[in-house]
Amino acid sequence: MKLKKGKNNCITDIRGVQVGHISLYEKLDNKTTICTGVTAILPHHNNLFRHKVHAGSAVLNGFGKTTGLIQVNELGLLESPIMLTNTFSVGAVWQGALDYMLGTTEEIGDTTSSINIVVGECNDSYLNTARYPSVKPEHAIKAIELACPSPVVEGAVGAGKGMVCFGYKGGIGTASRIVKHESTSYQIGCLVLSNFGKREDALFADWGPIKQDTPDGSIMIILATDAPLQERQLQRLSKRCAAGLGRTGSHLDNGSGDIAFAFSTATTVSHTWKQITHTIDFLRDDHPLMNQLFQAVVEIVEESIIRSLQMAETTVGRMGRIVEKAPL
Amino acid sequence: MKLKKGKNNCITDIRGVQVGHISLYEKLDNKTTICTGVTAILPHHNNLFRHKVHAGSAVLNGFGKTTGLIQVNELGLLESPIMLTNTFSVGAVWQGALDYMLGTTEEIGDTTSSINIVVGECNDSYLNTARYPSVKPEHAIKAIELACPSPVVEGAVGAGKGMVCFGYKGGIGTASRIVKHESTSYQIGCLVLSNFGKREDALFADWGPIKQDTPDGSIMIILATDAPLQERQLQRLSKRCAAGLGRTGSHLDNGSGDIAFAFSTATTVSHTWKQITHTIDFLRDDHPLMNQLFQAVVEIVEESIIRSLQMAETTVGRMGRIVEKAPL
Amino acid sequence: MKLKKGKNNCITDIRGVQVGHISLYEKLDNKTTICTGVTAILPHHNNLFRHKVHAGSAVLNGFGKTTGLIQVNELGLLESPIMLTNTFSVGAVWQGALDYMLGTTEEIGDTTSSINIVVGECNDSYLNTARYPSVKPEHAIKAIELACPSPVVEGAVGAGKGMVCFGYKGGIGTASRIVKHESTSYQIGCLVLSNFGKREDALFADWGPIKQDTPDGSIMIILATDAPLQERQLQRLSKRCAAGLGRTGSHLDNGSGDIAFAFSTATTVSHTWKQITHTIDFLRDDHPLMNQLFQAVVEIVEESIIRSLQMAETTVGRMGRIVEKAPL
Amino acid sequence: MKLKKGKNNCITDIRGVQVGHISLYEKLDNKTTICTGVTAILPHHNNLFRHKVHAGSAVLNGFGKTTGLIQVNELGLLESPIMLTNTFSVGAVWQGALDYMLGTTEEIGDTTSSINIVVGECNDSYLNTARYPSVKPEHAIKAIELACPSPVVEGAVGAGKGMVCFGYKGGIGTASRIVKHESTSYQIGCLVLSNFGKREDALFADWGPIKQDTPDGSIMIILATDAPLQERQLQRLSKRCAAGLGRTGSHLDNGSGDIAFAFSTATTVSHTWKQITHTIDFLRDDHPLMNQLFQAVVEIVEESIIRSLQMAETTVGRMGRIVEKAPL
Repeated sequence: MKLKKGKNNCITDIRGVQVGHISLYEKLDNKTTICTGVTAILPHHNNLFRHKVHAGSAVLNGFGKTTGLIQVNELGLLESPIMLTNTFSVGAVWQGALDYMLGTTEEIGDTTSSINIVVGECNDSYLNTARYPSVKPEHAIKAIELACPSPVVEGAVGAGKGMVCFGYKGGIGTASRIVKHESTSYQIGCLVLSNFGKREDALFADWGPIKQDTPDGSIMIILATDAPLQERQLQRLSKRCAAGLGRTGSHLDNGSGDIAFAFSTATTVSHTWKQITHTIDFLRDDHPLMNQLFQAVVEIVEESIIRSLQMAETTVGRMGRIVEKAPL
Repeated sequence: MKLKKGKNNCITDIRGVQVGHISLYEKLDNKTTICTGVTAILPHHNNLFRHKVHAGSAVLNGFGKTTGLIQVNELGLLESPIMLTNTFSVGAVWQGALDYMLGTTEEIGDTTSSINIVVGECNDSYLNTARYPSVKPEHAIKAIELACPSPVVEGAVGAGKGMVCFGYKGGIGTASRIVKHESTSYQIGCLVLSNFGKREDALFADWGPIKQDTPDGSIMIILATDAPLQERQLQRLSKRCAAGLGRTGSHLDNGSGDIAFAFSTATTVSHTWKQITHTIDFLRDDHPLMNQLFQAVVEIVEESIIRSLQMAETTVGRMGRIVEKAPL
Repeated sequence: MKLKKGKNNCITDIRGVQVGHISLYEKLDNKTTICTGVTAILPHHNNLFRHKVHAGSAVLNGFGKTTGLIQVNELGLLESPIMLTNTFSVGAVWQGALDYMLGTTEEIGDTTSSINIVVGECNDSYLNTARYPSVKPEHAIKAIELACPSPVVEGAVGAGKGMVCFGYKGGIGTASRIVKHESTSYQIGCLVLSNFGKREDALFADWGPIKQDTPDGSIMIILATDAPLQERQLQRLSKRCAAGLGRTGSHLDNGSGDIAFAFSTATTVSHTWKQITHTIDFLRDDHPLMNQLFQAVVEIVEESIIRSLQMAETTVGRMGRIVEKAPL
Repeated sequence: MKLKKGKNNCITDIRGVQVGHISLYEKLDNKTTICTGVTAILPHHNNLFRHKVHAGSAVLNGFGKTTGLIQVNELGLLESPIMLTNTFSVGAVWQGALDYMLGTTEEIGDTTSSINIVVGECNDSYLNTARYPSVKPEHAIKAIELACPSPVVEGAVGAGKGMVCFGYKGGIGTASRIVKHESTSYQIGCLVLSNFGKREDALFADWGPIKQDTPDGSIMIILATDAPLQERQLQRLSKRCAAGLGRTGSHLDNGSGDIAFAFSTATTVSHTWKQITHTIDFLRDDHPLMNQLFQAVVEIVEESIIRSLQMAETTVGRMGRIVEKAPL
């Protein structure tokens, strides 16, 4: 039984979630083209450090440079925006997200502890001159500031500006589902940064092989839900992303950083506290809604990837390289 | 590009690998039917304790009772047969495999260390009266003794006797592929014990839902290869099984023990030694053959599951329950 | 600041926790001596399957055959007694614990799902003729039935009957602490099965080396607390056991199965349910009581190990081997 | 039996290993003091990307922001310097190390894949005005350029400039050991960045408590060895660091990022290749030298921490805060 799509079939269908993009594009010379960007995903409208959300992740294939997963695994909490960018801009984007959080939260690193910044990346060096330091901390700040709850712009935008997927232009894609049991319903959304695969691998199309010297590629998958889930359960959702990848035809190639990250907006955990304990109310693992959520994850990962192709435009990158829009 | 199948499209295409089945079937009364069994997979013909093989695993969903993974993770070596059975027979089969190894290897637990036994399981309690203690240690010993390198009998046999998959009769399935680069070629095979899914989930068929009160189910996936891989790489192969599961339509439901285990026959590691170091020669992670192996894993997991359905017979179990052969 | 000890300095200081031992000792001939046993730890007095407790574990060194950790990691729940025995009796004790649970819980494997049994082990083959199948499923059942909330008998008893620690007689040891903040206090207890180390390694005594051909050994560490902790936090407690081991002089040798397991009695989770969600109230990770619990773990692991030596008696085992009581 | 110390009792006793420090210290105003730095550890003298080394890690407590572990876990290889700094300078130091590697290795991100940068950190915000962006990418580059094989300067230097340990001035410490079996000997060294603990916790001194509002703190532990170990074995060494921590009196407090990282200089793996396979010769896990290495890890972690205190100077930091040299 197929699940119902959310209102806009988008990660921002989950109330509070906001997404912002900055795209950078400029041909500097015949060899050098800036074709990259930054995408920021915010779990809610308030201060993210002061009001943390439960989170979990899964490293499906670890050829990647994502930051912040160690502390999320230890504490089960997300306290920063989730930032996406190209591989070599992880440092600049990490710095920008830190600067933004320091600017809006004066106690961090002064009267209270430090902050953990989550940055994910894919390698866009086929189209983008990755060695050229185009992304600056201020681009990350701008992406955060631009984040809004509107339907997400998809395709060759933000961190997806220079990505290549199944030999066609990839980038940002999103999808969402509603799960329902009696009078209870939850929503779950996905946003991917797609950058993997060869044409002939696609299971959702009938494409012949081409000669294209792209690296193995990678994918970042962000899941957001309003279902009341704690960190272990969010890790379980994250692991199911591998099945969604499998449905598109991915083999999780060696050189691919395939990383999934999930958070729930159902509860926030205050940084400061008056009480010794924290109370959470979370979905039973054996409730039928949990299996529906697992099914939803598989479906929205697959659909987000396909949409990232459908919504992308033919793009010209460094050294005159052209990656075409997929015939979908 | 599809990969070439092995000679018999079977896990025993990998030289040295042997498989043995014991099936138990008896209707004891109107409520009670024994419909279960044991399957043994042996990496090679010699003493498995004295000549260990490199191995790795991945817990895709951990609602399962598999034994032996802790030590395999720590040391990267398999030193026993891999045994498959029903959930409640893990103890008996563990005991039988231990007895077999003690009987053939007098030094274990006397003049040298202990032995680590690997037993995987799925829950066949829809058809089998699982609470009835039908499987005895001697059945495990018999399955090991019957193991041979012939093409594997598939379907409702061995540990697969009582399993249900996608609402039809499941059980044992196998497949293999050949990967090739210039003059080098390797083989990789898979054997599954399939026991998960609902009819409407199948992506490889167009089946409508039925009312059937089966549990969430589970799957055990065993990979064997003659490619020279060490334990970390065998873990990487094991993780790719989730993508193969995804291709069949699995959502890795909550109550499912979905566990993958991989070993390589390329090198054996002697239990006793004269030299300080052990030399291994293993495939580079960035060689194109590695991506072919990843692709092969995804393909053979999918195909083994489908074959486990194709080869199974309609089976009558406890309380008169009938599970039909799939119309494939 | 040292923490205050619990009333009996014992794991059963945690209300509801019960421990039972069966010791087996018989000289069969000049070569063969049965010198082993079973210990059962029960989190509470009610049916353990119907009323599960939160649990977590850490594999400090994985040369071990412990069963049940995979499912505990996936779901964060313990639903069986924790059983300890010798390495080769894991199958028999697993079977006995299963039989006990099936006998007291008719729905398991019939109208509801299967059950996950936790069995830990150490290798007592220096004193015990491990290859002789002395432990039977009924011994496990008996250990469970004998479990009581009285102060635990320590030393060469139960699963500890044949264990050797720092070259002296080891076995069962226990200790407990009270943590306190304003008007809130919790208790935490530890029970170890000690079986590792050489004399000259001990940091708590000044012992010279002897020639003794014991294997690298191992240790099982069970933590129980009434502090309201969820599974991730119980994993954190379990990881701290390595620091407690370090304080005694352990190096976590290669051949040692060093495994820690922790549960909380603060909440039980019902197997059946009427509500979609489960509410838990758990200690904040950043509350000072959490650091006190971490400190307590380190202290009680160290003390339990020392007590396992202090309380053990000189023991004669197979082939006339004698292991002396430690001069402590 | 105590192990023999290396020639200089230093991580640079391992041939090829180099360490460089940059210390930054300036009082800007009554509130603001720069008191921080960068330390770089290089496994060998050649290009680190083109000639990778085997590596492994262990997250002992994950309240930390270390980058690069995901890829090291997936591939078992280190291809960058290991950089240490303060928590908020991870981005700048990551950028500097990337810039250095791009500058010396033109193919990265152009004709070949990306590079994985390892940066570890501790929080020096008690003495250092962490919110002031004092560390720049060029400081990281300078630390790499200054790296040399001489005995390491210890104490309040490099990344250790502002660290506090057991309530006294901590920072950089190092130690090494020689393990020996017949004619074979290996060396293993440790470098720590120490920043944890309260005075009364120390087991190696008899210090009373003071009132000091330092955070829980953290520790970075780097192990280097010329023993031929592969990644799984280097993970095993890393896990033993928890026992060394325990010996000093650490409880691995909640807010502490306690992370261990180990590499072997015995083999290098070339980024480019002509052969399909890579051959390594590694120490058997069951060889007595492995247990000696485990023992060495515990000893050198403990000693490095103590030395980081012994070698540090009384330091004045932000807001006039003074942290004294330990009376050791």
